Amino acid sequence: MLCLTVPSDEQWAVAAVRSLPALLVDHAHCEMKAATNALSLVGRYPETAGNVLARALADIAAEEVLHFQQVLALLDARGLVLGAPPVDTYAASLRHAAAGLPPHRGASLVDRLLVAALIEARSCERFKLLTAALDQADTELCDFYAGLLASEARHYRTFVDLACEVGRGEPAMDEPTVLSRLARLATMEAKIVSTLAHAHGGDRATIHG
Amino acid sequence: MLCLTVPSDEQWAVAAVRSLPALLVDHAHCEMKAATNALSLVGRYPETAGNVLARALADIAAEEVLHFQQVLALLDARGLVLGAPPVDTYAASLRHAAAGLPPHRGASLVDRLLVAALIEARSCERFKLLTAALDQADTELCDFYAGLLASEARHYRTFVDLACEVGRGEPAMDEPTVLSRLARLATMEAKIVSTLAHAHGGDRATIHG
Repeated sequence: MLCLTVPSDEQWAVAAVRSLPALLVDHAHCEMKAATNALSLVGRYPETAGNVLARALADIAAEEVLHFQQVLALLDARGLVLGAPPVDTYAASLRHAAAGLPPHRGASLVDRLLVAALIEARSCERFKLLTAALDQADTELCDFYAGLLASEARHYRTFVDLACEVGRGEPAMDEPTVLSRLARLATMEAKIVSTLAHAHGGDRATIHG
Repeated sequence: MLCLTVPSDEQWAVAAVRSLPALLVDHAHCEMKAATNALSLVGRYPETAGNVLARALADIAAEEVLHFQQVLALLDARGLVLGAPPVDTYAASLRHAAAGLPPHRGASLVDRLLVAALIEARSCERFKLLTAALDQADTELCDFYAGLLASEARHYRTFVDLACEVGRGEPAMDEPTVLSRLARLATMEAKIVSTLAHAHGGDRATIHG
């Protein structure tokens, strides 16, 4: 569960596996946006935490681009076209929730890293559910998602470590303070996931829907 | 020279090599922005040209992120910190110039691809000049820039090919039309490069300055 406070509801994976083409398109966009987000953090905060932040984010971006290439190859092999992404209500709601945390010097970068950590944590949990649901239905995709689990968990850890590292450079933003912000964000994330679960009805063919 | 209509002035490489730390910081940001730009084009135009565009741009983004990681490693090895990028007048001026091309259905993506092609072409030329200027002064960097030449030239070719491919999907945007837009942009690029050469005085420690 990493830092997540509620599990996804059982019906998500069942519904997602019923609409694999739409799920793959959404997943491709998620990987692409994760890469762009990591790079944009370097561009926005190039002077923070020396080169540590830049190198860690560049490494994450490289892996996300590789995953994006892999999902594109799966789409191609299945005769599917990338197409436009569905609206990403989950990530937008999470960023909006983070804006409601107490203001603090250095918090804008810390919170962006924590939001990224939570997205990785939820992706990791969802990929695990997909692996189980695809076990009999689609061996190729089952193996693919099983292979992605470890890097999502690693990215989660890296984002939390980077948030703590950035916090150490700010007054009164020590590790317990950063982890307390993560815990508050995780509570908000749980509410967002539960709301989305009830809002969608039968349409759940997105990684974070 | 690829499609470039004027060579860089001879003093650029001399000045750039005198300020290698600043040049490396600017170069790191150039690679990072190139990766972000390639990914943002996929996000903006996911339904254009099937998966061909997405796969080609994802491949370019992967290479740009790798180059970014390589420049970061060079900065680290030399005890240099990434830091904020200098203002990128060159790229901004080129995008502004492209907005003055005749309006045409499908032109927004075609022109963005052609601008990216021109930036790769100029980078390729500049890396070649750096290779010559660094020959005796810094063997490690000389080898590094020599190694990047081929991929810049390849990216140039890919962006032009993609612009032609996208053009084929639009009425009255055949290959000669696309190449004519490239030629007009190249003329505008030459003016921008000449203006920057005279504007900077002694400070030329950027890849496109």
